[in-house]
Amino acid sequence: MSTTATTSPPSHERVDPRVRRTRTDVRRAAGELLLEEGWDAVTHARVASAAGYSRATIYAHWPRPIDLLIEAFNHLGAIPHHEPTGDLRQDLIAELTIFRTVLVDHGLARVLATLADRATTSPELAEFRDSIVAEGNRLFETIFCQHQSQEQARLSSALVLGTVFYLATMTDEPISDDTLVGIADRVIG
Amino acid sequence: MSTTATTSPPSHERVDPRVRRTRTDVRRAAGELLLEEGWDAVTHARVASAAGYSRATIYAHWPRPIDLLIEAFNHLGAIPHHEPTGDLRQDLIAELTIFRTVLVDHGLARVLATLADRATTSPELAEFRDSIVAEGNRLFETIFCQHQSQEQARLSSALVLGTVFYLATMTDEPISDDTLVGIADRVIG
Repeated sequence: MSTTATTSPPSHERVDPRVRRTRTDVRRAAGELLLEEGWDAVTHARVASAAGYSRATIYAHWPRPIDLLIEAFNHLGAIPHHEPTGDLRQDLIAELTIFRTVLVDHGLARVLATLADRATTSPELAEFRDSIVAEGNRLFETIFCQHQSQEQARLSSALVLGTVFYLATMTDEPISDDTLVGIADRVIG
Repeated sequence: MSTTATTSPPSHERVDPRVRRTRTDVRRAAGELLLEEGWDAVTHARVASAAGYSRATIYAHWPRPIDLLIEAFNHLGAIPHHEPTGDLRQDLIAELTIFRTVLVDHGLARVLATLADRATTSPELAEFRDSIVAEGNRLFETIFCQHQSQEQARLSSALVLGTVFYLATMTDEPISDDTLVGIADRVIG
């Protein structure tokens, strides 16, 4: 749900501009392949070709297939988050609107369904799924924690994330602004 | 989520006991294959072999691969539902407890994630997914409708179904009784 969901990030954070540029290109190429052709298209060969780099370069920075998937998810999840104002209702509706954009307009719902499926047979993907869930919870718990106990905030976060995730993955119906406001108001109580 | 989720049911409802027996055997074999070996194991050949019938028999009653998947889901979702008492909180907690059993203990969460994934590229599976969602909504809306407007009941149903579905498909953490009670109490308000 954010730009920062990373399991084992590539190990070049003191970043040379060329490396940063490579990562941006690879992230975009991997994200577009994931969205347009599906999970199995995100291979070293396809990403190298789409991003315009050698396979050796891609392997050097992203040795495992999952490293490329993480970049693809980061591309799809990249969106500026709402700066909390302290107004619970307003902050919650704003962040839910961003969450809907990422899930529906960026197509993340579809690939999260694939991730949920494949994580059941891959510990590596289960770890990645857990990091994404933790990131989403952190985001919403931060908003709720200003007004609720830690325990209440955890439940509130599960309610809002879960409902929007379910509507986006299990139904084809559009998620209207009214629905988001309805979810927020019911969870705030 | 129930024994009755069927898209294009096999057309032999005035049922001869042998046919009923065949269906029970096929349903169980298909459900066990789905759970133990995954979606791609639910083929006419494998189901025929596991259930102890000829492939011709299986093809005669379940001509399409999706017909076998529907039987498999029906097997995993088969559970007696709670008879509503009219006490909203009690009825809701009872039905959520059954929903958790089906998702977690019967393993339906895993195959619903696969269904969400595959429905994005198959209109036939999207239709089946929609029938399952409609069945789940019907079940929970019936409980809420005794106490809420139709519109409120729809939202309540999405909140409870969505939250439990999300916890079961996107996390490995057990869903405790306290969590179910917390969800119920927050949605009832």
